[in-house]
Amino acid sequence: MGGLPTLRIEPVPLERKVRPGDDLAELIAESAELEEGDVLAIAHTVVSKAEGALISLDEIEPSPFAKTLAERTGKDPRVVEVILREAESIVRVGPDFIITEVRGGMVCANAGVDESNAPPGYVIVLPEDPDRSARELRRRLRELVGVDVGVIITDTQGRPFREGVVGVAIGASGVPVLADRRGDRDLYGRELKITIVALGDLLASAAELVMGQADEGTPAVIFRGLKPELERFEGPRKARAIIRSPSRDIFR
Amino acid sequence: MGGLPTLRIEPVPLERKVRPGDDLAELIAESAELEEGDVLAIAHTVVSKAEGALISLDEIEPSPFAKTLAERTGKDPRVVEVILREAESIVRVGPDFIITEVRGGMVCANAGVDESNAPPGYVIVLPEDPDRSARELRRRLRELVGVDVGVIITDTQGRPFREGVVGVAIGASGVPVLADRRGDRDLYGRELKITIVALGDLLASAAELVMGQADEGTPAVIFRGLKPELERFEGPRKARAIIRSPSRDIFR
Ligand SMILES: Nc1nc2c(ncn2[C@@H]2O[C@H](COP(=O)(O)OP(=O)(O)O)[C@@H](O)[C@H]2O)c(=O)[nH]1
Ligand SMILES: Nc1nc2c(ncn2[C@@H]2O[C@H](COP(=O)(O)OP(=O)(O)O)[C@@H](O)[C@H]2O)c(=O)[nH]1
Ligand SMILES: [Mn+2]
Ligand SMILES: [Mn+2]
Ligand SMILES: [Mn+2]
Ligand SMILES: [Mn+2]
Repeated sequence: MGGLPTLRIEPVPLERKVRPGDDLAELIAESAELEEGDVLAIAHTVVSKAEGALISLDEIEPSPFAKTLAERTGKDPRVVEVILREAESIVRVGPDFIITEVRGGMVCANAGVDESNAPPGYVIVLPEDPDRSARELRRRLRELVGVDVGVIITDTQGRPFREGVVGVAIGASGVPVLADRRGDRDLYGRELKITIVALGDLLASAAELVMGQADEGTPAVIFRGLKPELERFEGPRKARAIIRSPSRDIFR
Repeated sequence: MGGLPTLRIEPVPLERKVRPGDDLAELIAESAELEEGDVLAIAHTVVSKAEGALISLDEIEPSPFAKTLAERTGKDPRVVEVILREAESIVRVGPDFIITEVRGGMVCANAGVDESNAPPGYVIVLPEDPDRSARELRRRLRELVGVDVGVIITDTQGRPFREGVVGVAIGASGVPVLADRRGDRDLYGRELKITIVALGDLLASAAELVMGQADEGTPAVIFRGLKPELERFEGPRKARAIIRSPSRDIFR
């Protein structure tokens, strides 16, 4: 047990820009024919926009510390101010980014504050509780189309040691995000040592291939029929479980 | 431009265990009907085995330092000795793993030395030059089946800040591994700031979903028709380009 049969990842383009108050489930149901067993991966950008997790830069007065960091990183001082308000703590300051810990313990650049795909004059912040957002979107989809899909909320993030950004799961509902392979045997009958697979992040990275990063207008994808396959794995179903606790982290 | 149409990822199971001297391209060509435009992702485990990158533990005499590290990490002292021989330097020692820098500059746990899916009494080490392995496999596939496929050699690795392992590209040929999105515009016409996407790692992580980690016997997958899509992106075609140089890395 473990690998999956042929995988299909289908784009779910949305026709228009998402705005605060939008019913995301409705927009998705209009664009895609959801089926029992689907897993939906959706970019947090549109979840944040629908939830009103947008900050108008006009109303931001940068603190002296924000100004200092802005100079050091070449960022807009108002954006740095938003980052500082969103962050629980600063992990490290890089040449043109600030590594932060955010609510819930996730470590990411710039407290997850996005300038790209934000309406002019605004920045996008992370959803208040992405696992709750995933649960709510799943519930609403069940209500609208009568189908129980798994939901993963994704973000695009950098990482130490390697260039470039990848996909990570920041919210989830209805699918395991970590697959515990303990006790499974390899081809020679030996028990596995690398036991925990970050399923949620694998899905998020696979989804990024189809979503893109710019004006593709494709904030979601569907993994067709994947839910029953994933459900064979035991494992936590909240993306929060992927966050390594500082006591287990030798890089903090 | 950027996102991709519906993506199909097909498993390429191999019938038997790979042994030193095996012609991997032949084994793959027997199992899969390769088509022009395919991208093949293949686990380094079988590349290593075919290239004879296996170490017999019987012949390993652990040094005093290896014994000390073995005690500290709970690992087999002979395995630690192999890790030390494979490593260029030790980045950090964790509770049950050793973070190392290996030939070529990649940072990974245990110098990429694998016990799982290694023949009994052996460990698997990384291919000597995975970009060369990818190039050679691609050349040999072209020779055997007359089709030019893109090749990504993958490994399963952990990372700071997040639990669980994901896929990374350690070798590549014929496809860009980093996609430079600089100059591309978002939905509102603004130029992207997060500009470099780690395409190779996205492919590797997507591939892991289908390969599994244990006795699935599926060391490769095919991304059907993906090569022309990827070739729209400018970007380096050696996986080595994904390795962040220490001078650009604030976590070292
Ligand atoms: N239709 C539509 N697509 C959007 C909207 N916002 C973002 N996207 C798309 O969602 C995908 C991911 O966007 P990105 O900015 O990378 O989001 P992030 O990775 O979650 O920070 C891209 O295809 C964007 O074009 C929106 O309001 N409407
Ligand atoms: N048929 C076959 N499959 C193998 C062999 N070695 C590994 N695999 C499969 O390759 C996939 C990846 O193996 P894994 O040990 O995770 O490799 P790694 O991630 O590259 O270190 C799994 O499906 C394994 O069962 C082999 O010699 N023969
Ligand atoms: Mn984001
Ligand atoms: Mn993105
Ligand atoms: Mn490996
Ligand atoms: Mn693996």
